[in-house]
Amino acid sequence: QDNFDPADHAHKRRNPLTDEWVLVSPHRAKRPWQGQSEPINEPQLPAHDENCFLCPGNERISGDVNTNYSGTYVFQNDFAALQADSPDSPQSQDPLFQMKAESGEAHVICFSPDHSKTLPELTHSQLLTVVETWTQQYIKLSKRFQWVQIFENKGAAMGCSQPHPHGQIWANSSIPTLPKKESQQQTQYYQAYQKNLLLEYAQKEDTNDVRTVYKNQDWIVVVPYWASWPFETLLMPRLRQVSHFHQLTENEKKSLADAIKVLTTKYDNLFNTSFPYSMGWHGAPTHLKDTPYWQLHAHFYPPLLRSASVKKFMVGYEMLAEPQRDLTPEQAAEKLKALSTHHYKDK
Amino acid sequence: QDNFDPADHAHKRRNPLTDEWVLVSPHRAKRPWQGQSEPINEPQLPAHDENCFLCPGNERISGDVNTNYSGTYVFQNDFAALQADSPDSPQSQDPLFQMKAESGEAHVICFSPDHSKTLPELTHSQLLTVVETWTQQYIKLSKRFQWVQIFENKGAAMGCSQPHPHGQIWANSSIPTLPKKESQQQTQYYQAYQKNLLLEYAQKEDTNDVRTVYKNQDWIVVVPYWASWPFETLLMPRLRQVSHFHQLTENEKKSLADAIKVLTTKYDNLFNTSFPYSMGWHGAPTHLKDTPYWQLHAHFYPPLLRSASVKKFMVGYEMLAEPQRDLTPEQAAEKLKALSTHHYKDK
Ligand SMILES: O=P(O)(O)O[C@H]1O[C@H](CO)[C@@H](O)[C@H](O)[C@H]1O
Ligand SMILES: O=P(O)(O)O[C@H]1O[C@H](CO)[C@@H](O)[C@H](O)[C@H]1O
Repeated sequence: QDNFDPADHAHKRRNPLTDEWVLVSPHRAKRPWQGQSEPINEPQLPAHDENCFLCPGNERISGDVNTNYSGTYVFQNDFAALQADSPDSPQSQDPLFQMKAESGEAHVICFSPDHSKTLPELTHSQLLTVVETWTQQYIKLSKRFQWVQIFENKGAAMGCSQPHPHGQIWANSSIPTLPKKESQQQTQYYQAYQKNLLLEYAQKEDTNDVRTVYKNQDWIVVVPYWASWPFETLLMPRLRQVSHFHQLTENEKKSLADAIKVLTTKYDNLFNTSFPYSMGWHGAPTHLKDTPYWQLHAHFYPPLLRSASVKKFMVGYEMLAEPQRDLTPEQAAEKLKALSTHHYKDK
Repeated sequence: QDNFDPADHAHKRRNPLTDEWVLVSPHRAKRPWQGQSEPINEPQLPAHDENCFLCPGNERISGDVNTNYSGTYVFQNDFAALQADSPDSPQSQDPLFQMKAESGEAHVICFSPDHSKTLPELTHSQLLTVVETWTQQYIKLSKRFQWVQIFENKGAAMGCSQPHPHGQIWANSSIPTLPKKESQQQTQYYQAYQKNLLLEYAQKEDTNDVRTVYKNQDWIVVVPYWASWPFETLLMPRLRQVSHFHQLTENEKKSLADAIKVLTTKYDNLFNTSFPYSMGWHGAPTHLKDTPYWQLHAHFYPPLLRSASVKKFMVGYEMLAEPQRDLTPEQAAEKLKALSTHHYKDK
């Protein structure tokens, strides 16, 4: 035990939000890479692209025409994975063949009319408009659905089919698998310790500081102790408990815009590339109006590992046994923390 | 309920091995794709490549030299994620910061000396040698480790850094997250119904036949009712319960070689490409010598969706909420079943 060094020896860490573990293999970062390279393809994009489905005034595949929007723009996904008018399914009797109908809605949110910009390249007030749009959508959809998933897939490596800056919202009639786990875990923690899991965690990280990437008066960004993806981060309130996105105060929305700007800028600066990721918000299921158990938070899951072209593959062992990472969360946090908050493209 | 058609309406299905759900959105397959294309890169490879770390007689990065093997060849991974001699970690006190030391071993198995061949291109007797090698390794490693994960990552899209046909085995001192879930679910099912979950499931699929891709006297391959990946399959014993890989009879190993040959050939024939996937074996944790709860099985997780160059991305919604698929398991099974068992490269 005297010799154990988590920066050197393989170990597992537990994710208290899911009760799942991750295998950390710090010595593995030395391994050579001869596998697939992600295409690095960063031409300067035009501010308006006439072939883009998301640019203002353009026609989409469905035949609908986008308005000449100047801020954000929300429309129903033309190929939605969820539909509002699904009929009910019959009851499944067999425990091995369980199926149930699911209804919902899927929306696209254009973050900016400018085809060439990404989140870190927006101004503070443009980012605040994105935060306001999330709030409005959350208010609207949470009245009708149990779960409202706000997210962004960014970059070709993350299956994003469109460089135009945009995110999505999928709203569901039932609570999906992962939020259900987070709900259970936060409830259990509260019942056991009479404390909010993530608020307690944020406070400990705030004091300890080795995994903190950024903080301001309201928010803290850490590489969580249990991160699976190499540069995964968790963005959460620093000082108070918040159940739902629309419960953020005006000041918290402003400081959230700051946090997003800094975090996404650091990400881009890490490998001097527009950093791909999937990000999204988790808050309490909508039927729980206010609950001390739940803490609102955002996960950022970026796939890159060593450079703009080498990503971490969550394959074989990860799909069959357990996620595995090649550097410690502390090492990742140290790198992100050291990076400039000035965007590399911004001369 | 009269109108509900699972081939047309969004619904969820439950995975009884993990108690997790998948969102099925059959109408979504019509969506256009403008995103990343996987590189299609299938030059005829030489039978021996002097720059390959896995070819017989070549030197590896570690300086070790491969033997002039003619069948399979097993060696310790030069950049193992697990190490045999890890010291013990101190006990974690805080429920939010749980860490434990993990020891283990990682091995590479070359399936053939021929650099240019993949599993479906091996002869029956060569495939049987692969099955025998898995058996021998399982026997050896299961004496010392709680979990022995046999797997293969195939293709650049699955993070495979090497075209030389090979798989891996990682052995652990503790049971990883996913097998632990499968263990719990199979135990609960047995306790509730006094039946083996997957044996019961195999028998129902065998009778029903709509998701069956292939079967022989001992094995059945289905696109499981709860598949997440578009062409995911589950390979399992058809008629009897088997806890561990080394408990297979000689006949079962022979018919397993047949099953692997047919399944991987069909996969390659689907898009006329060497089909990428991660596959691997799950059996009872090694400390359970024999248990009626557990059924040995292999999962195949291939990422391709529509063609050799368009894959399914498990990103945004999938990472944050729940896996989602664009065609039903029945549609996928029908396609795979219809394909020839004659390999497209084999004129
Ligand atoms: O061991 P390899 O083939 O170098 O690496 C590959 O398989 C491993 C086990 O599934 C993964 O952890 C790696 O991310 C992947 O690139
Ligand atoms: O909706 P998009 O951007 O076309 O599609 C992308 O995001 C979805 C939601 O995360 C995923 O299901 C798709 O696999 C991915 O390609």
